[in-house]
Amino acid sequence: MALIVVGSVAFDAIETPFGKTGKILGGAGTFISLSSSYFNISPKLISVVGGDFPDEHINLLKEHNVNTEGLQVKSDKKTFFWSGKYHDDMNSRDTLITELNVLGEFNPVVPESFQGASVVMLGNLSPDVQRKVIEQLRNRPALIVMDTMNFWMDIALDELLRTIKMVDVITLNDEEARQLSGEKSLVLAAKKILELGPKYVIIKKGEHGALLFDKNNIFFAPALPLEFVFDPTGAGDTFAGGFSGYLAKTQDFSFNNMKKAVVYGSAMASFCVEKFGTENLVGLNDKIINERFKKFVELINF
Amino acid sequence: MALIVVGSVAFDAIETPFGKTGKILGGAGTFISLSSSYFNISPKLISVVGGDFPDEHINLLKEHNVNTEGLQVKSDKKTFFWSGKYHDDMNSRDTLITELNVLGEFNPVVPESFQGASVVMLGNLSPDVQRKVIEQLRNRPALIVMDTMNFWMDIALDELLRTIKMVDVITLNDEEARQLSGEKSLVLAAKKILELGPKYVIIKKGEHGALLFDKNNIFFAPALPLEFVFDPTGAGDTFAGGFSGYLAKTQDFSFNNMKKAVVYGSAMASFCVEKFGTENLVGLNDKIINERFKKFVELINF
Repeated sequence: MALIVVGSVAFDAIETPFGKTGKILGGAGTFISLSSSYFNISPKLISVVGGDFPDEHINLLKEHNVNTEGLQVKSDKKTFFWSGKYHDDMNSRDTLITELNVLGEFNPVVPESFQGASVVMLGNLSPDVQRKVIEQLRNRPALIVMDTMNFWMDIALDELLRTIKMVDVITLNDEEARQLSGEKSLVLAAKKILELGPKYVIIKKGEHGALLFDKNNIFFAPALPLEFVFDPTGAGDTFAGGFSGYLAKTQDFSFNNMKKAVVYGSAMASFCVEKFGTENLVGLNDKIINERFKKFVELINF
Repeated sequence: MALIVVGSVAFDAIETPFGKTGKILGGAGTFISLSSSYFNISPKLISVVGGDFPDEHINLLKEHNVNTEGLQVKSDKKTFFWSGKYHDDMNSRDTLITELNVLGEFNPVVPESFQGASVVMLGNLSPDVQRKVIEQLRNRPALIVMDTMNFWMDIALDELLRTIKMVDVITLNDEEARQLSGEKSLVLAAKKILELGPKYVIIKKGEHGALLFDKNNIFFAPALPLEFVFDPTGAGDTFAGGFSGYLAKTQDFSFNNMKKAVVYGSAMASFCVEKFGTENLVGLNDKIINERFKKFVELINF
């Protein structure tokens, strides 16, 4: 039931209408790892940081049973840094700073002990890096999931399509699904994206929930209506962590079980947005998570 | 199990990316009546048209067992006319023409035979007109539902608040809920609106579904993901028709039954948007509607 997680481990500096942080722990790989760690699968992280990355952050990951053997530390370089400011509606944001640093020349290496993992979660990264991980796996994992974003559609579409062809599940947001497919309707968009290779497409609509498609079925999971959204940073990655963590734990890749995985992903994301950064992904447990899961059942049960 | 429907009966001229109509049958009262008629409750319509309103439209309503005794015909005046053009995304539109005509001085009269109705559905109209209907009812109906829009918040807020205080359920869209409450979060918005009087608040999010709130519960119903949305005109009114029609038929006003009513409303709305105007609300039947209802069950069942 091993899960490999690939994604950035980074510094974020975030400004929302509710406050402002300094350089805090961020990155897709971080959110995915922490979120998936609650499914008792000791996520195996593949990523890179610089010499400026504090031990306390690595220790936090280790305390959550994240296997950091695949986390490269380039002591003479700096860690990836992103800074952004959310608008009043919290649905849009401006990127203030992007310093790629170590991520610019990231050459992922799959440790020998990671071979044989049954699920791989490729967080949003260059499709080239995502592919390089897949190509190092001696046995094809039972399930490969990839996240991506519009940035790669703009600058590396051919590479992206090549990687998409290799995966089982792709997750993207509604605007990205429209851009990739050229279709306005999300139903038609999903159909076109399925033709690119994946067996499943997940379209994330933020506060409006998520849609799961295969060739014959559609499933919709709402987002939990919250009184207070503090910081949406990492919500999509946290979703991916809950989704892939639950699947790695259960090893059932049927459409029916994918539905549950989408709801677990949504439940984990609902924790993430309640505080800054990864703050609310620390100190969760089965009981808290299952109570949150139940709220989703109650929300839609009629 | 009688239902009174109050709302405009009108001409619409609609332009979408998919086509353009001449003056076709429209109006909140029309959509609500047709939609609710499928719940076998012979909706009792209160509205007004001008001398230019063709018999064929009135006959269409009658064929759907709509009781038109409360439909005033002002032969020397013209029918309310609205014209609008939808943008490419179908989520926003420009109003091209609004000719109030007979609606500008509409003085609603509740026919004697309408007295005793257990459910009243007040479509979007001046809150003053909505209140005048309530005040003419000798026995307080078991359930009064009102729809409204931002326009009345802008120009007649005091009147609107007075009417809101008199009803059991208010339906509005997400932006209107935010405007009325001054809250960004829909959960907080609903809480504030509940303090204005109604026991239930329904927040419609268009293609993103609908939320039902009472003091202690939240329910979410998705919209059906469609390959093709042809014309959103009247979708909210059709929702209100399905919602109130189902409640008038079942006479069970518990939160649990309201949930089902919201799903029936969403199911009816999903028919509406598939063709121009009221075109797709003609010729439905129980079988077709229940099949659509089942699609909602399948969509969220996990």
